[in-house]
Amino acid sequence: MLTKTGSFKFHVESYVCDFTEKATLSVICNFILEAASTHAQQRGFGYEQILEGNVAWVLSRLSVEMYEYPGHNRDLTVETWIESVNHFFTERCFRFIDEKGTTVGYARTIWAAIDITTRRPIDLLTWRSDMLDYVEAEKECAVERMHKILPVENIEPCMGYSVRYSNIDINKHMSSIKYIEHIIDVFDLDMFKEKFIHKFDIVYLAEGRFGDKLKLYRQSISENEYIIDTKKDNNSICRSRIVWK
Amino acid sequence: MLTKTGSFKFHVESYVCDFTEKATLSVICNFILEAASTHAQQRGFGYEQILEGNVAWVLSRLSVEMYEYPGHNRDLTVETWIESVNHFFTERCFRFIDEKGTTVGYARTIWAAIDITTRRPIDLLTWRSDMLDYVEAEKECAVERMHKILPVENIEPCMGYSVRYSNIDINKHMSSIKYIEHIIDVFDLDMFKEKFIHKFDIVYLAEGRFGDKLKLYRQSISENEYIIDTKKDNNSICRSRIVWK
Repeated sequence: MLTKTGSFKFHVESYVCDFTEKATLSVICNFILEAASTHAQQRGFGYEQILEGNVAWVLSRLSVEMYEYPGHNRDLTVETWIESVNHFFTERCFRFIDEKGTTVGYARTIWAAIDITTRRPIDLLTWRSDMLDYVEAEKECAVERMHKILPVENIEPCMGYSVRYSNIDINKHMSSIKYIEHIIDVFDLDMFKEKFIHKFDIVYLAEGRFGDKLKLYRQSISENEYIIDTKKDNNSICRSRIVWK
Repeated sequence: MLTKTGSFKFHVESYVCDFTEKATLSVICNFILEAASTHAQQRGFGYEQILEGNVAWVLSRLSVEMYEYPGHNRDLTVETWIESVNHFFTERCFRFIDEKGTTVGYARTIWAAIDITTRRPIDLLTWRSDMLDYVEAEKECAVERMHKILPVENIEPCMGYSVRYSNIDINKHMSSIKYIEHIIDVFDLDMFKEKFIHKFDIVYLAEGRFGDKLKLYRQSISENEYIIDTKKDNNSICRSRIVWK
């Protein structure tokens, strides 16, 4: 049997960095998805393997906490392990380690498996109890579980966009990473000159589809904390919290 | 001395695929940049190495011709080599090879090196004549040199967007890949159900900056051929040609 924790090394190419010469949050999220995908594939429950049973993984929540973003031409090692498997959700954690061996961040994700035809969640314990063999219960993930993110109401949207081809993923819905890029884009460049995104939480509530006209609502909670609500008509598609440092 | 041609293997992750379950053109362009970057770095004239001399590579033109896009969970090998080095431009070519060893496409790129402070091009033959040692003149790149792309005039824009944080790269300008994503987004999803982008040409004419409001103009040349002009005010920032198949 493979180890419970998988470890994957990524290289931060200069052309994926932002103007501060660091990897962006969206690049870190890409590393998260790639590490999760490879870890699952190696253990028999990856995207391609479960697709044969008409099942797909859906990301429900993601929390990232970064103490430092890796710079260009640097390596970043991503460790990933399964923290728990319940009836309808599995928690997968991540630790980010720089070239010197220092932990530079953590992430926590919550996934559901859905029947592709009905779009309904599947009971993980009945469907794939073998996943329990890989649960690494003792390893610490220093990201707290997400607090509820309240909807943003009674303000005007600060940005809008239409869901187009480049936003649609293999599941025929808006890609989880693309939501994040649009959310971060509500901030001015000056913000990134002085601060960095220390904590990022996102909860996915509904699926964005081609042609949807989405609006973003930004609410300031404190000097460094914001809620950004992405809505279609008046319903939240996803909600996120950003803490700057 | 290293070989003139470099060969790099990439894996097509499911979450970078579009709804047709194939890698997108923008993913192929990311592979192109990563292969170019690594090839140059290994031979002493990569991004980090020339940055020390206050010089940066700027992509001026890109032509991609694909016979088939790789599907999810497939490997794609990208070969890259320098075809020529002249005073102000160097041509770099690419060949794409699938898991069976079949050539599935080619690309041709033209790069300039600029002084970061003045933004003026540098004479490559004076600056780095050692690049000539790596010129692979005999290898065939089956993409013809780009024909002139005429501006699109006297029609209304079909789409617009503002340049935001996620579009800005390490050089503090709009990223070359992000232009491509926006250009492809002028097409309806139905187009991608029936056809694929067989040929793609882009010429970068000016640098997009944060806050720029860009407009896209689409002109149909024949049933399968389109010109898309990206303009700021009335000036082209980049122009592209797409041939569908």
